[in-house]
Amino acid sequence: MAKELSKMTKRSEDYSKWYNDLVVNADLAEQSAVRGCMVIKPYGYAIWEKMQQELDKMFKTTGVQNAYFPLLIPKSYLCREAEHVEGFAKECAVVTHYRLKNDPNGAGVVVDPEAKLEEELIVRPTSETIIWATYKNWITSHRDLPILCNQWCNVMRWEMRTRMFLRTSEFLWQEGHTAHATKEEAAERAMQMINVYADFAEKWMAVPVIKGPKSPNERFAGALDTFTIEAMMQDGKALQAGTSHFLGQNFAKAFEVTFTNKENKQEYVWATSWGVSTRLMGALIMTHSDDNGLVLPPKLAPIQVVIVPIYKKAEELAAISERVQPWVEALRAKGISVKYDDADNKKPGWKFSEYELKGIPVRLAIGPRDLESNTVELMRRDTLEKETVGQEGIVERVEGLLEDIQSAIFEKARKMRDGYIRRVDTWEQFKVEIEKGGFLLCHWDGTVETEERIKAETKATIRCIPFVAQDPEDLKPGVDMVTGKPSARRVLFARSY
Amino acid sequence: MAKELSKMTKRSEDYSKWYNDLVVNADLAEQSAVRGCMVIKPYGYAIWEKMQQELDKMFKTTGVQNAYFPLLIPKSYLCREAEHVEGFAKECAVVTHYRLKNDPNGAGVVVDPEAKLEEELIVRPTSETIIWATYKNWITSHRDLPILCNQWCNVMRWEMRTRMFLRTSEFLWQEGHTAHATKEEAAERAMQMINVYADFAEKWMAVPVIKGPKSPNERFAGALDTFTIEAMMQDGKALQAGTSHFLGQNFAKAFEVTFTNKENKQEYVWATSWGVSTRLMGALIMTHSDDNGLVLPPKLAPIQVVIVPIYKKAEELAAISERVQPWVEALRAKGISVKYDDADNKKPGWKFSEYELKGIPVRLAIGPRDLESNTVELMRRDTLEKETVGQEGIVERVEGLLEDIQSAIFEKARKMRDGYIRRVDTWEQFKVEIEKGGFLLCHWDGTVETEERIKAETKATIRCIPFVAQDPEDLKPGVDMVTGKPSARRVLFARSY
Repeated sequence: MAKELSKMTKRSEDYSKWYNDLVVNADLAEQSAVRGCMVIKPYGYAIWEKMQQELDKMFKTTGVQNAYFPLLIPKSYLCREAEHVEGFAKECAVVTHYRLKNDPNGAGVVVDPEAKLEEELIVRPTSETIIWATYKNWITSHRDLPILCNQWCNVMRWEMRTRMFLRTSEFLWQEGHTAHATKEEAAERAMQMINVYADFAEKWMAVPVIKGPKSPNERFAGALDTFTIEAMMQDGKALQAGTSHFLGQNFAKAFEVTFTNKENKQEYVWATSWGVSTRLMGALIMTHSDDNGLVLPPKLAPIQVVIVPIYKKAEELAAISERVQPWVEALRAKGISVKYDDADNKKPGWKFSEYELKGIPVRLAIGPRDLESNTVELMRRDTLEKETVGQEGIVERVEGLLEDIQSAIFEKARKMRDGYIRRVDTWEQFKVEIEKGGFLLCHWDGTVETEERIKAETKATIRCIPFVAQDPEDLKPGVDMVTGKPSARRVLFARSY
Repeated sequence: MAKELSKMTKRSEDYSKWYNDLVVNADLAEQSAVRGCMVIKPYGYAIWEKMQQELDKMFKTTGVQNAYFPLLIPKSYLCREAEHVEGFAKECAVVTHYRLKNDPNGAGVVVDPEAKLEEELIVRPTSETIIWATYKNWITSHRDLPILCNQWCNVMRWEMRTRMFLRTSEFLWQEGHTAHATKEEAAERAMQMINVYADFAEKWMAVPVIKGPKSPNERFAGALDTFTIEAMMQDGKALQAGTSHFLGQNFAKAFEVTFTNKENKQEYVWATSWGVSTRLMGALIMTHSDDNGLVLPPKLAPIQVVIVPIYKKAEELAAISERVQPWVEALRAKGISVKYDDADNKKPGWKFSEYELKGIPVRLAIGPRDLESNTVELMRRDTLEKETVGQEGIVERVEGLLEDIQSAIFEKARKMRDGYIRRVDTWEQFKVEIEKGGFLLCHWDGTVETEERIKAETKATIRCIPFVAQDPEDLKPGVDMVTGKPSARRVLFARSY
């Protein structure tokens, strides 16, 4: 067993500690010396890069282009949209000076009081304000629309309680910001992007999600509608994995962005914004992984197949290497990433544990006896099942197995998630059930007061009002479980990350 | 003529204004509302993305992995390495507070004085300090080495005089930071990376560069050696396009990063760092472009070929489109990016100017008469030469032309650069020649004093001590042109961006 494994807490002991141990031991990330900020290590970053590449392709297919806007936002910009400043201006990093100097009293390097900014600058918590201030100069006529920009960047929100990937003061994300001539087109774009996120979550991350709008209370600060994708973690807590906002004309009004429409009249521009972040890494880890370490969907695994030779003598290694080389080449020709680990300073057992910890989807092990019998040991990381198979057709077998694992872990996660969905009709029952975790589909009277009472007493929030009902019955009217007032349909409650 | 062109200043009138007009009119970037920070617009960002993709591939081929380190650096970190703090801690954005609040006197949102940080945080001007503080925990033994990390990120240096892409307060870049067990290995890595940059500049950007170490005075703050690639712009000013630093053990000592070597002794780790930034965009623009707009090397052009149909009636367009469609597909199949611009709200003349301005390397124009005569008009952006050619073999012809343009603009830039290189032997002659711009190869006595005197009197600096002599004579000893003291060899002087 690798020494890393001995440090791993089991999920059943302490889920939160298991998560943290896994992030650190699998070399995904670590805390930095800067409060609430993490270092994303090469292995973690390689997974994030695979996510970025695919998302970027999906965005571009819908006509989106990348651009880059400034990191620092004038304080006054943040204050232009009333709800937005309430939501974002509070906990943020504020730049007040632009120079350090040597202290005249020898106290080292200090802030130069003469280099105080006239107006403070805020490290962007999100970029609607600076982007809409920019769009003002780009838009005159309906012929300038739509504008479909995205940026990959870092943002900062001064969080009090942080957890790696899930909630950090600085995080990496993409933020799309689109401008449209009509309300319908903007609303459609907001919907289109939540569908892109859902597709990515399900087809690439193998994380099943429930799509729907947020309740008004949970909307993005400044949005008329926020669509979300909600995933369920193994511990029964929900995780918001991506959001897409229909912003109406709020930011256009705040930044006076108008255009001449086809009828030659001045009109405010319609907007959307949408984002996913390194939080997706948290969702990925917590959906699939187990007590042995990471389980990665093959489509996002930086290394999809590892081949470990089992040998004592150099001649044995040479013979194994010769046999294996054509497989490596054939797998690579199929676009499959393979590592042949013939390092001689680590024992096979150590390697096995290490690659389990790192979540490599498929492992092949081959020794001298396999050479004679034309066999190879095949291990799939998701189930940890081992099988000795013939060498003939091994490349196609591995290729098929990677596809199997991709769908198997999605199905496993879907079953886990579905097992967590229950319908609850009374407030007493809700308070009991919410302790068991999971999604609760309940009737709600539609008021902020009831929503806030539920949150105050149980820490559960409305995750979304699902677009697609799990059951047609969910769409039928009922009575609010707390107030007894009429309810239009069931909505989705959970405790969440 | 497009209205954009009418706004363009000619190079001969005002080179600096021409550059600025070009950046704005070709939709590459614009000034933002935040002092010294630019917005990189989609077309400019698409070129930067192509640069990133290729550089990233080249880095990875040498074993480098990407990672991500925090944006904010504790002030004390910056002060650990004595020269580094002198070089970087002065003009920088300082975060002093982490919260805003509503002013009790109704003055809007203000900085909350209670949310003052105990220690100020600096927006990274470069990341050696935070990275070496992190490497301390990654390195125990020689088996943990080398570490070869790179990050793509934003950095900030509070510049007083800014110019888009060339010098902005915030810019995008990559910074590689490597850690090694031996001095030799680190020195080799620093050399390897300057070679990667030179290859990229010459083969992808078509920008010829002169490689060599900086004089001690021009080294990176904290480096034992800085290697640079120096390019020559059309106006005779040099531009430092990339640097690679051999840092010795300076940062390892400052952050106490030691390892157990193979002899089981504790030793400080050896380091390099290397970076290129969005400044490369400036080098690209200023090397090749002309009074009609941008000239792009085909390998970095987001659109390599544009096809413009010339028509009056819908039937004509339909016939042209039918003829052109197979070409579009065949070009794309070869990995060539093609835009077929059949938009009917713009005239061909407008399109021609627009695509010249944007630097699309090859333009095809085809009208009804071409359909009859099986011809097509072919225009190459670099020389603006037009030619009417047969349609047969047009795809291969375009493919070949793209390669021709790539090498032709490199050759043109090389000739321009070589024409700017002169050997100067007297101080009087130097002061005359430097006014004409270009590179001057001169003898220098090797002292900081002489270098500083030359800079003070002429604004010229030593750009580098070329690895490869333009002429073997350059490597022979001589006498310093200013002091008459002995000089080991000629070094390269220029005024620079």
